Amino acid sequence: MTTERFEFATALAKRAGAFARDYFQRIDTLTIESKGHQDMVSEADRDTETLVRDALKEAYPHDGILGEEHGRIEGSSDYLWIIDPIDGTANFVTGIPQWCVIIACLKNHETCFGVIYDPISGELFTAQRGQGAFVNGKKIAISQSPGLDVGSVGLGHSAKSTTAKTLAVAERLLSAGGMFFRNASGGLMLAYTASGRLIGYIEEEMNVWDCVAGLLMIEEAGGTVAPFDMKQAIEHKCRVVAGGPTIYSELMQIADEVYGQV
Amino acid sequence: MTTERFEFATALAKRAGAFARDYFQRIDTLTIESKGHQDMVSEADRDTETLVRDALKEAYPHDGILGEEHGRIEGSSDYLWIIDPIDGTANFVTGIPQWCVIIACLKNHETCFGVIYDPISGELFTAQRGQGAFVNGKKIAISQSPGLDVGSVGLGHSAKSTTAKTLAVAERLLSAGGMFFRNASGGLMLAYTASGRLIGYIEEEMNVWDCVAGLLMIEEAGGTVAPFDMKQAIEHKCRVVAGGPTIYSELMQIADEVYGQV
Repeated sequence: MTTERFEFATALAKRAGAFARDYFQRIDTLTIESKGHQDMVSEADRDTETLVRDALKEAYPHDGILGEEHGRIEGSSDYLWIIDPIDGTANFVTGIPQWCVIIACLKNHETCFGVIYDPISGELFTAQRGQGAFVNGKKIAISQSPGLDVGSVGLGHSAKSTTAKTLAVAERLLSAGGMFFRNASGGLMLAYTASGRLIGYIEEEMNVWDCVAGLLMIEEAGGTVAPFDMKQAIEHKCRVVAGGPTIYSELMQIADEVYGQV
Repeated sequence: MTTERFEFATALAKRAGAFARDYFQRIDTLTIESKGHQDMVSEADRDTETLVRDALKEAYPHDGILGEEHGRIEGSSDYLWIIDPIDGTANFVTGIPQWCVIIACLKNHETCFGVIYDPISGELFTAQRGQGAFVNGKKIAISQSPGLDVGSVGLGHSAKSTTAKTLAVAERLLSAGGMFFRNASGGLMLAYTASGRLIGYIEEEMNVWDCVAGLLMIEEAGGTVAPFDMKQAIEHKCRVVAGGPTIYSELMQIADEVYGQV
């Protein structure tokens, strides 16, 4: 049942977040002893994903699981879990307290809920399809910003994007009197968009484990997201453009011009 | 005495941080009721600065005080306090949990200590001249990154900078195989640079209340900062380029070429 899985997922995200935070705090202690630092980070990432996968396998043995580190397990039920146990790894690695646990669940290739947990601020962002979006149980809503000059837009850039396109998007945003925000955690930036803290988000392509939870939140918070085919996105990534009514149109225009029409 | 003032400042930063966080959490609650939101934010900013100023005036009535909101009070002692009670106001306003309290103290126009407190993560960054830099009492050190392609550089952009220059700097960083980070709190980004989380920082000009605490931290953490004249910086802002040995040289070259030589 979807509701039961949702409740399981929120508890699991908190448990995984506390587990990863414990590593994070020890990593910080060890920052100035460079030896062993990388090993510990890899261990944190791997162990957190293992914790999440093991819990899901035990509770829902027939569901599929897809995650960044350990690939895909096919399931025999209608459900597919898509997880990113530590989103914002570059921050995590260096000790910047801006990263999150992401757990999304699909039923027949449609996202039915998403959970994004920030164990540092203690914020738990959640959305179930058709039931709104929340942070720590309080309803959130997309920004009603009237234009790009009022508020900041989350700008994603991964190593695989081309520099020229990212710069072209930044140029458009700044020329429109706007501002970009890039804290290196796509999950948090999408959650901030859903909660009206950022007015929108734009990135040429994201992996599904980084974006599907946040995209559902944005929709459930009253925002619009660029349409995408889930099966294709799972195989080939996904262009992400999202925001409130006005911002979405303006960002889509930028995306079409800079990234090309899909 | 400087040491006594330092201890006073760390306690005051924590107190101001807790006070501002209380507002922040209420602002978040009110996010979806847009009416009254701006008023509450202005009140938070103003009241937090008042708290800090009143405490300083009471404890050190002969010291000068310079802050963003309420201008400068001339003192008769050798000390000048430079404060930014809420750095990262845009984040604070919108509910993004990335902002900090900054308190710096100058003696005869030289920074003698700096304190940066993040009330969300609970991190207190401190430096006293000649005594190293610390986060929550643990020694921190600048990144020893061998080049711009290893790690992220904090990129400052304020409304007053020109778009073209910020984009040109971003282009240089990305072309060098590097990455930029912009979380909209200059204070936190400088503290992250001092603690090796970011490999360096670059911004055409910053106000002294945003940068002098962090710049001392970076020096005390073993980094290099672009030289500046404190009196001029107080009047006219300050170009900020900072990093470990290799990164500093590379960023200075970018700054000279993009911003022009000073």
